[in-house]
Amino acid sequence: MRLLTEKNIEDIALGAAVLGTGGGGDPYIGMLMARQAIRDYGPVELYSLDELNDDDLIIPTAMMGATTVMVEKMPRGDDIINAFKTVGKYIGKPVRATMSIEAGGLNSVVPIYVAARLRVPLVDCDGMGRAFPELQMVTHTIAGITSTPMAMSDERGNTVLMETITNKWTERFARSVTVEMGAMAMIALYAATVKQLKECAVIGTISKAEEIGKVVRSARVNELDPVTTVRKAVGGFEVFLGKISDVQRRTEAGFAKGDAFIDGIDNYAGQKLQISFQNEHLVARIDGEIKVSVPDLITILDIDTGEPITTEAMRYGYRVAVIAMPCDPKWRTPKGLELVGPKYFGYDVEYVPVEERYL
Amino acid sequence: MRLLTEKNIEDIALGAAVLGTGGGGDPYIGMLMARQAIRDYGPVELYSLDELNDDDLIIPTAMMGATTVMVEKMPRGDDIINAFKTVGKYIGKPVRATMSIEAGGLNSVVPIYVAARLRVPLVDCDGMGRAFPELQMVTHTIAGITSTPMAMSDERGNTVLMETITNKWTERFARSVTVEMGAMAMIALYAATVKQLKECAVIGTISKAEEIGKVVRSARVNELDPVTTVRKAVGGFEVFLGKISDVQRRTEAGFAKGDAFIDGIDNYAGQKLQISFQNEHLVARIDGEIKVSVPDLITILDIDTGEPITTEAMRYGYRVAVIAMPCDPKWRTPKGLELVGPKYFGYDVEYVPVEERYL
Repeated sequence: MRLLTEKNIEDIALGAAVLGTGGGGDPYIGMLMARQAIRDYGPVELYSLDELNDDDLIIPTAMMGATTVMVEKMPRGDDIINAFKTVGKYIGKPVRATMSIEAGGLNSVVPIYVAARLRVPLVDCDGMGRAFPELQMVTHTIAGITSTPMAMSDERGNTVLMETITNKWTERFARSVTVEMGAMAMIALYAATVKQLKECAVIGTISKAEEIGKVVRSARVNELDPVTTVRKAVGGFEVFLGKISDVQRRTEAGFAKGDAFIDGIDNYAGQKLQISFQNEHLVARIDGEIKVSVPDLITILDIDTGEPITTEAMRYGYRVAVIAMPCDPKWRTPKGLELVGPKYFGYDVEYVPVEERYL
Repeated sequence: MRLLTEKNIEDIALGAAVLGTGGGGDPYIGMLMARQAIRDYGPVELYSLDELNDDDLIIPTAMMGATTVMVEKMPRGDDIINAFKTVGKYIGKPVRATMSIEAGGLNSVVPIYVAARLRVPLVDCDGMGRAFPELQMVTHTIAGITSTPMAMSDERGNTVLMETITNKWTERFARSVTVEMGAMAMIALYAATVKQLKECAVIGTISKAEEIGKVVRSARVNELDPVTTVRKAVGGFEVFLGKISDVQRRTEAGFAKGDAFIDGIDNYAGQKLQISFQNEHLVARIDGEIKVSVPDLITILDIDTGEPITTEAMRYGYRVAVIAMPCDPKWRTPKGLELVGPKYFGYDVEYVPVEERYL
């Protein structure tokens, strides 16, 4: 166990945004929320799974919705507490801790806010090792763990609780309720024991995010080549360097969908990269050819600072580096690819691990 | 207390379809379900509110959705039991009985099915005295009784439970979940004590429906002028006689919406009646002029049999009588008209009680 203070939070949010592949929410808003909670309620205890008892019950907490909305609609805080407590009460057993369901600027710190405010520990793992747009896309699903009981709360005080027969049905109901809640909802779901998490979760995500965040921050401070520094720190590959020439967005069925177009510079001059996203970056194509796809991670960094740029922050004229990282091995199994491979998202191509293209 | 057997059920479903003003579900499917349950589990005890204790807890049960879908999708039964039990379990107190939330061919007998199968009584009242398309449109809302905890279940085994801040929010979330459940869901909501119901409910609806059903049946059997017989029995007014010339339907946001056009015959020859519906008939216009509007009841009867015709059963060529009946006085209060008056449904006219036009 170690304590997370304000400083750690900043690094975690920054590093998780690198793993968030464009999604997982705005790290700045998340940081504000979690820092305030730590100021008000004190530091948060971060536990590894090994430090907990096998039958301890863990309930992850997160924000759901189109991240484009969140820029204008700051979470209030009571809503996520409400969702967390509703699931715990419904299960009727003591809840030991919370955790992240995904790595992302906001969704890595939402559980820190819950942990700070309710004085429960945070567990150093998550259900993706990155961010994905749909609820069933967690390693829990691969392991057969059910997403429900799931609670959703909005800032008005409405709560929806569900029990479904599959995690895909959870996604379906929850997405439509999210739309009614104003395209954003705070959620608690995928309750699991430590024993189950040891088998199914992606381990050490919070510490990993924090390490990455530190590197981004120090690269910026030390005026090194920040993109190369960050890329090496995450074990990633350079996919493209360029200038954003166009971003087309639409909010559709509760998702922030769209495409970003980047004109190459330096070694990539004359080439055009297209990134398609659904909350998170799904596929990167250079001159029409797929170079990286889900479930591998595609991250856009500011070329001058090495800081990750979320899909909602992408703007015409930004000079960016596009890097790619291998996903957690669980996603490369047949079950994993069925859940989050390129075909699920409508791209009729076989998944090729990024390192096979770039090593 | 009296016992309801198969014979009563048939009359109740038939009479409630007259009160259902085109909505409230297909009486035939409802009858099949409830009759089977009574055959399998025995007769149902019908209690008046006065025969129960003031603090007894009553949970209404119903079907929600576009009735056009139900013709093709027969409710399975486990879903409504599931919804009823979920609300009871969530409240955590013993549940004394169930009741109808509205009068309608299906929704008058759904609670009979629940009562038969779970061996709980049915209460002789409802929340509308007719059928209305939206969840907040019950006399409970006028009295400030909350619709939640509300449970929704589908035939697959999915359940959604909600706690909302207003009954309008319940409608909003529930409608979108209903769409995801396949445009139809089984629901339990508006839990209330007998004391509350004595003040807010429409009393005696089941007995009233049964009386009306008996009249319809005997008019048919005795070859009287069935429409006049039924109209007099319900204290209604003749609005139009004619032949259906066109029915335009659309399923929109979980509602069966549309318009029926009827060409006048006999005294109405040369005139054209338009009925606009949203699950239930909302407004009847002759040659463009509103003759009857919500919250008063507009019912279409088969001119030869006196049987009510639901919106989904209306077809080109049917010879029909359109009758109108005064609604429960609770709907004519300012709060009632705010909930279900013509303006709520987008008609910019003042409500005129039907008897002022026809007496």
